[in-house]
Amino acid sequence: MEIKVVRNILEANDRIAAQNRDLFTEKGIYVLNLMGSPGAGKTSLLERTLEHLKKRRKIAVIEGDIETSRDAERIAHFNIPIVQINTGGACHLDGNMVRGSLAELSLDHLDLLIVENVGNLVCPAEFQFGENDRAMILSVTEGDDKPMKYPLMFQVSSVLLLNKVDLIPYLDFDMERFQADALKVNPKLQIMAVSCKTGEGLNAWFGWIEGQLA
Amino acid sequence: MEIKVVRNILEANDRIAAQNRDLFTEKGIYVLNLMGSPGAGKTSLLERTLEHLKKRRKIAVIEGDIETSRDAERIAHFNIPIVQINTGGACHLDGNMVRGSLAELSLDHLDLLIVENVGNLVCPAEFQFGENDRAMILSVTEGDDKPMKYPLMFQVSSVLLLNKVDLIPYLDFDMERFQADALKVNPKLQIMAVSCKTGEGLNAWFGWIEGQLA
Repeated sequence: MEIKVVRNILEANDRIAAQNRDLFTEKGIYVLNLMGSPGAGKTSLLERTLEHLKKRRKIAVIEGDIETSRDAERIAHFNIPIVQINTGGACHLDGNMVRGSLAELSLDHLDLLIVENVGNLVCPAEFQFGENDRAMILSVTEGDDKPMKYPLMFQVSSVLLLNKVDLIPYLDFDMERFQADALKVNPKLQIMAVSCKTGEGLNAWFGWIEGQLA
Repeated sequence: MEIKVVRNILEANDRIAAQNRDLFTEKGIYVLNLMGSPGAGKTSLLERTLEHLKKRRKIAVIEGDIETSRDAERIAHFNIPIVQINTGGACHLDGNMVRGSLAELSLDHLDLLIVENVGNLVCPAEFQFGENDRAMILSVTEGDDKPMKYPLMFQVSSVLLLNKVDLIPYLDFDMERFQADALKVNPKLQIMAVSCKTGEGLNAWFGWIEGQLA
């Protein structure tokens, strides 16, 4: 039966994710899984985060993309270790892909590993790879109806960064409805309204990461 | 008007897609698969298209969503046959899901069946269900780098509707680069710059559909 096959794949993934998690714990590395639709602002958030944290913490990045290494190139000037995973068609990262990429990183003396997942509001939410937290980023341009229509990513995330709030004056975006729906789906979700373009609201995000690292 | 909800178990099945195609051909129905990220504007485009074509053609709609029937409710006032498929977690429609939903539609005397796929820039491109053409809609807010990073949907689509062009003044969107990249990925792709909000550019789209129906 098809459902059984899917379940087995997820179980196999969870086993590898647990092994990764043990390794990260042993090395004292906090691992963040950054998820969201294409164009939501994952790489922009990463740039802002690296600008802020680079001098205080030892950071490495894993970039997940179906093809190209454009995102990795965008952050290459930060001069930190970066591994690019090209999934070759797969719409999410999984435990095995991340496991395979760890050989390219020196895990000793690392504080923070940020993994930018493949741009997709659906599938990445189903596959853990051993991370400590999942953060999702959603652009206001995607619409205020997303928590109810795509609930899983909202459910599994610790933080939701609502990005591009500088565009709200030009959109029909009902912030109250959005926040109410997001919290209905996940009452523990921390929602931060930000603009990676103007910098608005990012201090809350930096504070949150520092808190997780501490 | 009552919206029919059909729940399906995912079962990738190209054979069923071919059977669907035979059935559509036999009934003389032109079938369009509308794909794009969450929030790209699929339902808005559908609304505009129904406004324009409803009096001239017999149209039915299949709405694909992971959960909810919100999109179906948005177009219920058009008083045309609508079937809602809830994929129950699956990130795309496939031949079997569409096949299962056809029992809810009267296929005789139908000119056009528009299928709004699950919001996702990746997976829907991999699964046909017997459609004549695939049209993708991408919002300028998703960024000008998408053709190279998510090439498959661009490759399999006949038409690309670049939506929300009214927001370009507030974004860093390089139209020349975008068009060049999209055509590099698919030299036959017909690109139409539109705004479902203002109506800009939609006549080209209506003309294209009329041409396919003729």
